[in-house]
Amino acid sequence: MPQKLQTPIIIINFKTYTESTGQKAIELARSAEKVTRETGIQTAVAPQLAELATVTKAVKIPVFAQHIDSIKPGGYTGHVLADSVKEAGAVGTLINHSERQLKLSDIDEIVKITKEKDLISCVCANNPTISAAVATLEPDIIAIEPPELIGTGIPVSKAKPEVITDTVKLVRKVNSKVTILCGAGIGHGEDVAAALKLGTQGVLVASGIVKAKDPYTVIREFADASKR
Amino acid sequence: MPQKLQTPIIIINFKTYTESTGQKAIELARSAEKVTRETGIQTAVAPQLAELATVTKAVKIPVFAQHIDSIKPGGYTGHVLADSVKEAGAVGTLINHSERQLKLSDIDEIVKITKEKDLISCVCANNPTISAAVATLEPDIIAIEPPELIGTGIPVSKAKPEVITDTVKLVRKVNSKVTILCGAGIGHGEDVAAALKLGTQGVLVASGIVKAKDPYTVIREFADASKR
Amino acid sequence: MPQKLQTPIIIINFKTYTESTGQKAIELARSAEKVTRETGIQTAVAPQLAELATVTKAVKIPVFAQHIDSIKPGGYTGHVLADSVKEAGAVGTLINHSERQLKLSDIDEIVKITKEKDLISCVCANNPTISAAVATLEPDIIAIEPPELIGTGIPVSKAKPEVITDTVKLVRKVNSKVTILCGAGIGHGEDVAAALKLGTQGVLVASGIVKAKDPYTVIREFADASKR
Amino acid sequence: MPQKLQTPIIIINFKTYTESTGQKAIELARSAEKVTRETGIQTAVAPQLAELATVTKAVKIPVFAQHIDSIKPGGYTGHVLADSVKEAGAVGTLINHSERQLKLSDIDEIVKITKEKDLISCVCANNPTISAAVATLEPDIIAIEPPELIGTGIPVSKAKPEVITDTVKLVRKVNSKVTILCGAGIGHGEDVAAALKLGTQGVLVASGIVKAKDPYTVIREFADASKR
Repeated sequence: MPQKLQTPIIIINFKTYTESTGQKAIELARSAEKVTRETGIQTAVAPQLAELATVTKAVKIPVFAQHIDSIKPGGYTGHVLADSVKEAGAVGTLINHSERQLKLSDIDEIVKITKEKDLISCVCANNPTISAAVATLEPDIIAIEPPELIGTGIPVSKAKPEVITDTVKLVRKVNSKVTILCGAGIGHGEDVAAALKLGTQGVLVASGIVKAKDPYTVIREFADASKR
Repeated sequence: MPQKLQTPIIIINFKTYTESTGQKAIELARSAEKVTRETGIQTAVAPQLAELATVTKAVKIPVFAQHIDSIKPGGYTGHVLADSVKEAGAVGTLINHSERQLKLSDIDEIVKITKEKDLISCVCANNPTISAAVATLEPDIIAIEPPELIGTGIPVSKAKPEVITDTVKLVRKVNSKVTILCGAGIGHGEDVAAALKLGTQGVLVASGIVKAKDPYTVIREFADASKR
Repeated sequence: MPQKLQTPIIIINFKTYTESTGQKAIELARSAEKVTRETGIQTAVAPQLAELATVTKAVKIPVFAQHIDSIKPGGYTGHVLADSVKEAGAVGTLINHSERQLKLSDIDEIVKITKEKDLISCVCANNPTISAAVATLEPDIIAIEPPELIGTGIPVSKAKPEVITDTVKLVRKVNSKVTILCGAGIGHGEDVAAALKLGTQGVLVASGIVKAKDPYTVIREFADASKR
Repeated sequence: MPQKLQTPIIIINFKTYTESTGQKAIELARSAEKVTRETGIQTAVAPQLAELATVTKAVKIPVFAQHIDSIKPGGYTGHVLADSVKEAGAVGTLINHSERQLKLSDIDEIVKITKEKDLISCVCANNPTISAAVATLEPDIIAIEPPELIGTGIPVSKAKPEVITDTVKLVRKVNSKVTILCGAGIGHGEDVAAALKLGTQGVLVASGIVKAKDPYTVIREFADASKR
């Protein structure tokens, strides 16, 4: 992973908000790309599946899927095949987001599939213990997000710094290489700076940017804060 | 629905086969479009989500999603929002395919969402009883597919004609308008003709076309058989 | 069903409350039994699975499971086999409660299993449309419970009488025999009387009784109101 | 755990077989108890939930539930509350059996609940990687069972010894205390002896005993082989 994506990194999860659906997904991705061009700080976006192909065509920053299934090619109507997101131009995928939680055996299987297909895996975890469990599966990225703070505007890096430091400590015991991000409630540059200071290599952020009046300004603020 | 799609109709479910992933999805959709142009028989395709936008741009025949979730815009990472498939150009969606079965309350909710968003709903059902239950929810299309025949090449219309006639009978008791399709094992023109003779208005087909050596020829055979 | 259970009927769902766990489950079941003995009104109880055998031994009123799975005997660790609840003395089971919703095909399969095993099926439904869909599967009992009122103390029979009358109307169109119950927010005798007047044959009730200071008194009030 | 259960241990998973349902569950548990009395080797049984209370009353060996849910007391119809299995006399529970797989966050939560309630946790895992992930959650017992061998009669300890040795190695890297069992295909004393020699502290077994013509003889053979 480190060879593929530079850190610190800001990954923007588009979720299924109106503000990031259809044509708006492209605009949002372009704002992120602009910030990367201006600041040199790595940004990435995770739009909905139906917009994956159009977003990857529109921007040069890395694009993630929000989810893939633990399947190989075959008869799996309505599921998400790794090959299809890769052919659509995605470089990686979120896995096990707290809004799309998976069975442990599926997380294990999906991480293995991403390695085979040379996709970057970003596995989400709710708490430090789960982060450590995930770390043993050797994904490229772990994103710790306490679900109770998601979408609240109360930044994990300030409200629950111990969640981050505990995560870093427990994860590093079992995995020295994985990139660690944090998320939930991140809305200001200082939240990003705090996250980095606590030992993470970046943030996974959604509503703080997607639902902002001016997303570009917020992404730029995040990027500037990442330079410390 | 009848005002939106003409019958008889051949809906091709691309599933997650290698033969219908990426660029191949576009070729397959073009074969279906060619048959419709040549024969006047309605075809439609249901590619994977990541290919929805590129397929809808490439062809003029109706394109379905393979699945949408029972969600409104919001924080639902990794889920499929009706608005996103609609903005990608889809005119409808499969729902409750036997490989992606849903809770009853989700089927009810998704059918309601498709009505709001003016999308065509095609709800799949495993047997005649379930078809009748689905029919009370008033979707546009019901597709009866006995799961034990899916992918076998043993056509439901010949191996289990009573499944189709029972379905038509039970469904019509509670719903006089819904379009009824059948699927599973359909591989030859005569299977399609048999399905229509048993009271259906078309077929939902996957491997019989997707995995055929020459998909165009099979679709054409299906279309010719649909003219009776 | 009518030959098995008389109506009006009050079915008490014990859920997984502390007030209905362990020894307390037996006391609660005995209160219901006492009311039936005193008033002649049919009551029934649905304790947790781990207490099924002890409750059926302690009382003579009908005992339901809260859930069974769509399985036959075999290798299904952690699932609930119809045979096991029957051997534990249950006469029936709740199915698809809004807190334990099932795939449509599983509801269909479980109703069929209850018929084979001569168990009474009580399928729960969230709204009138879903109730009608369920009715086509021909269960013994349907219980309509708007999830937004469950546990609120706001009785469906008074707050949303049209949900009940619409359910009765839609269900009777497709099934003339099924017993119709309603639930959610039922806390007083007058709520039960209102439910019966709106066309139901009884109530499915949980917190209104389980969490009452004196459950016996509430069950008695319900039974008295059922006599009209 | 070591203070609660001695090792080597033979845990018999009753699953939902006819041969272990109802009265037969009690007989089977008594066979296990008899072997423990005769040989001093620890056996334990995991009957279905509806038989938990009767089995715990009938025997003195430890009894496990096959599954509990990640819930606290409340409105969770059809779910399995830790308190209820404890009040029914269980000393622990299987978690995440390959036939009842769970989301990672639920496994984490259930292990925490078992600690609070002083229940023994036995988390099942499909492969060495998943075993290591589970080990970081600090359950009392891990049972590695390759799903492809379950119920086959092909013993994991002989067919795939490297699965066991890899599991022991990966688990011990992150957890020095957890008891490690193996399962799948175990049918003879020599399979048990092989499992112990490979570094486990016992076996989790189902059909090899439950479906044996004479379960007592097989359990006795397992116990004798455990003495080495």
